[in-house]
Amino acid sequence: MSTEQPIIVVKIGGAAGVDTQAACADAALCLQEGHRLVLVHGGSAEASALGEALGHPPRFVTSPSGFTSRYTDERTLEVFSMAVNGGINTSLVSQLRRLGVNALGLSGLDGGLARAGRKAAIRVVENGKQKRLHGDFTGKIGAVDAGLLRLLLGAGYTPVIAPLAAGKDGEALNTDADRMAAMVAAALGAESLLLLTAAPGLLRDFPDESSLIPRLHRDQLDEALQLAEGRMKKKVLGAAEALEGGVRRVIIGDGRIANPIRTALDGAGTMIEAGH
Amino acid sequence: MSTEQPIIVVKIGGAAGVDTQAACADAALCLQEGHRLVLVHGGSAEASALGEALGHPPRFVTSPSGFTSRYTDERTLEVFSMAVNGGINTSLVSQLRRLGVNALGLSGLDGGLARAGRKAAIRVVENGKQKRLHGDFTGKIGAVDAGLLRLLLGAGYTPVIAPLAAGKDGEALNTDADRMAAMVAAALGAESLLLLTAAPGLLRDFPDESSLIPRLHRDQLDEALQLAEGRMKKKVLGAAEALEGGVRRVIIGDGRIANPIRTALDGAGTMIEAGH
Repeated sequence: MSTEQPIIVVKIGGAAGVDTQAACADAALCLQEGHRLVLVHGGSAEASALGEALGHPPRFVTSPSGFTSRYTDERTLEVFSMAVNGGINTSLVSQLRRLGVNALGLSGLDGGLARAGRKAAIRVVENGKQKRLHGDFTGKIGAVDAGLLRLLLGAGYTPVIAPLAAGKDGEALNTDADRMAAMVAAALGAESLLLLTAAPGLLRDFPDESSLIPRLHRDQLDEALQLAEGRMKKKVLGAAEALEGGVRRVIIGDGRIANPIRTALDGAGTMIEAGH
Repeated sequence: MSTEQPIIVVKIGGAAGVDTQAACADAALCLQEGHRLVLVHGGSAEASALGEALGHPPRFVTSPSGFTSRYTDERTLEVFSMAVNGGINTSLVSQLRRLGVNALGLSGLDGGLARAGRKAAIRVVENGKQKRLHGDFTGKIGAVDAGLLRLLLGAGYTPVIAPLAAGKDGEALNTDADRMAAMVAAALGAESLLLLTAAPGLLRDFPDESSLIPRLHRDQLDEALQLAEGRMKKKVLGAAEALEGGVRRVIIGDGRIANPIRTALDGAGTMIEAGH
């Protein structure tokens, strides 16, 4: 019976302030209620901390259109992979298993789950000047193999996905976890994509939490992209990609509270629907 | 057709001197020839190096019966997991994917693949004195879920397994990779278990490489255990466990050479057979 349930993709953790333990506990309850879940996580803060500890601090760059990302040279990719895949992913799988969830960790590299393109050079703005950087191991996901996820879901596993993607030559690439969650949701035809964050949702006037936007139509996403601060821009982009890919609704929900998943599914946060 | 081929489990890398690149290239060729492979890896040296770099150097302890192991407190387990699961496993999966292998990385924690028991305290010998150590996150694997591996093999994936196991409460445990490979081979009813090492095989007179023992019967394993040096003891124990579990033959083969897998399967190294 449970295999007939719609799928919910949840981007869990990553940002400071998101309560991973509460999210895991709520995921376990959702599964008991019969939902099918796929979890995607970040790990940016942990990767930065590990890089600092190993004498290879992160370098963040800003694109001409205002998006911030981690410049990922080969050593940064190794550090990112250790922190995200060996650190966060293993810790989440362990936490979930303690709660009785049959969690199985993967990254987008495994089985070619998430294929990404990689730019030969990226354009960045530093001190007001544009320049080009080479050797960046970052990828934008072009396709997710729903077959592997369906195979695992069908066998009763709950996939927990780390934000690495497979480049076209098999190399591992750093990828954005929010947009990965969006592509996973689209590939699975998920009913809902839930992006947990350290805020009540999308704010009209950041950081004023009383300015929460409770509901958006997909036509308003361009406007929302202008309002969004920093990392929230990626969530808005992810929301657009998920709706474009056929996901019925995207919720940007508060990840700092108890029961963050069910609270968001019940209507808190910012709900973005494809509409009719 | 290829799903009808017997399964070969290969313990790849881990020890200094084992040529991982050659093993990956040879694995790719074996797969092209129609073999089905499951790879298990170690990562002890990398975990130690990461621990040193992070100010948490490894502590090795010796049991009263002469086995050496890494004392794994909670922080050591985190470091081990980052190095082995996020570092080596991701790197092997990437190398294999570059070679056209549909590799998929897992640890024994994922999906509860390898269940292990954990001792409340371990007995160790230090400066000639026995003492007990608590809080050790090390486990001896009791059961491997062949179902998950068969699911993945059947769908065309080549599993690459990191030496973490699932404790009974869902916690991750450090586990020995040679013995994990043995338990995986037994659970799958593998035709062959191949343990690659930085020597031509089991030596009668370590480190004299001309003293290679080319063939052993399982009845001689107790005697071999006395001859074996250091880490080789675990391989001999693994060999015994694999044969006990129904594996037809175990080969301890040279991992420093080109084509290490096919060379061992062709009869080099130390072959240990169940016999009739």
